[in-house]
Amino acid sequence: MATDLPITDRTKLRRKPMRGSHERAAIDAILDEALICHVGFVGKHGPVVIPMAHVRVDDQLYIHGSAVNYMLRTLTGGIDACVTVTLLDGLVLARTAFHHSVNYRSVVLFGRAVAIDDTEAKLAALAALVDHISPGRSSASRPPNAKELTATTVLGLPITEASAKVRSGPPLPDDGEDLMLPYWSGVVPLVTERGAPINAPDCALPWPGR
Amino acid sequence: MATDLPITDRTKLRRKPMRGSHERAAIDAILDEALICHVGFVGKHGPVVIPMAHVRVDDQLYIHGSAVNYMLRTLTGGIDACVTVTLLDGLVLARTAFHHSVNYRSVVLFGRAVAIDDTEAKLAALAALVDHISPGRSSASRPPNAKELTATTVLGLPITEASAKVRSGPPLPDDGEDLMLPYWSGVVPLVTERGAPINAPDCALPWPGR
Repeated sequence: MATDLPITDRTKLRRKPMRGSHERAAIDAILDEALICHVGFVGKHGPVVIPMAHVRVDDQLYIHGSAVNYMLRTLTGGIDACVTVTLLDGLVLARTAFHHSVNYRSVVLFGRAVAIDDTEAKLAALAALVDHISPGRSSASRPPNAKELTATTVLGLPITEASAKVRSGPPLPDDGEDLMLPYWSGVVPLVTERGAPINAPDCALPWPGR
Repeated sequence: MATDLPITDRTKLRRKPMRGSHERAAIDAILDEALICHVGFVGKHGPVVIPMAHVRVDDQLYIHGSAVNYMLRTLTGGIDACVTVTLLDGLVLARTAFHHSVNYRSVVLFGRAVAIDDTEAKLAALAALVDHISPGRSSASRPPNAKELTATTVLGLPITEASAKVRSGPPLPDDGEDLMLPYWSGVVPLVTERGAPINAPDCALPWPGR
């Protein structure tokens, strides 16, 4: 059972702290459901934010890419990074423009990335990355060979300084005269679904179901 | 017709430039379809990435929030920001772990935000923000009053330095022995849909259809 995280100056929730959490269970659930994260770092010209696939395994968040990728090479230097994951759950429509909002679950994680160079650990992280987008794929595809492993950088960020923030439910209740406004109020849920699989042109096999 | 953007050192596409574009039409289409962006900036402890609702109007990207929001107050100082928008379109499953990927459309925008303080411009940006999550809502809800306007900060970023990047289609073709591997290969599309609207507890009106 993962220990809940300490609150630091970076992860203290200033705005609407009642929507936040430093519990690992809350943080992990969001990291595990999301398929991509947004990685922020300071490049030579200032802040840069890049979308990446990710996977959490135990207390580490892994990202990967080409060994010549600018961001990965920069992060390998051990600089500060901020990785943010957001799941958008719904549109919150109120009677007043002011109370419009969105329902979401997000995690903001701070840390410094470490290159995963050990072959066994690197293969395990890459398998987890593939399994994260499609469960079981790591055993339903050829694992990386030596050349592919060399061409790939895997970075791990420890999950030690992070917070989750969640908004859910209906709009804040209107009051006074606003309650009498003739406008609809409520939530339009957003759902991301997997569509019918499309075979590659050179693949005649039936979709295996995952 | 918006002018296509110049290529700068920050927006030059280094990895897989054939997937990239500096055309305003490509950039605008992605900004307009996405409901949230990820805003990166350098705070007092280093890089920070925060999810925000946004809207594009002509050559400006607007974000907004509480006037006491730490990020908005920091950005109002005119510091460098990077705003990234990502639409995830599909999971790309290849016969080899190495060729797994995702289909996506993303925009990375660099710039400095300016506070929109003029009342008319601020109201117009807030109306556009509400209409972006639900077309027509700005005329189907009460506009902000003076107190709400004061409590809200609206920032505009000029769309002058940005790039789009798109991956679409099937996995890269496997070759040689990999082509004979007994594994499925193709794309699993991801689709975000709006579910059945849920009335707020204090609203008995029927859903107006948008």
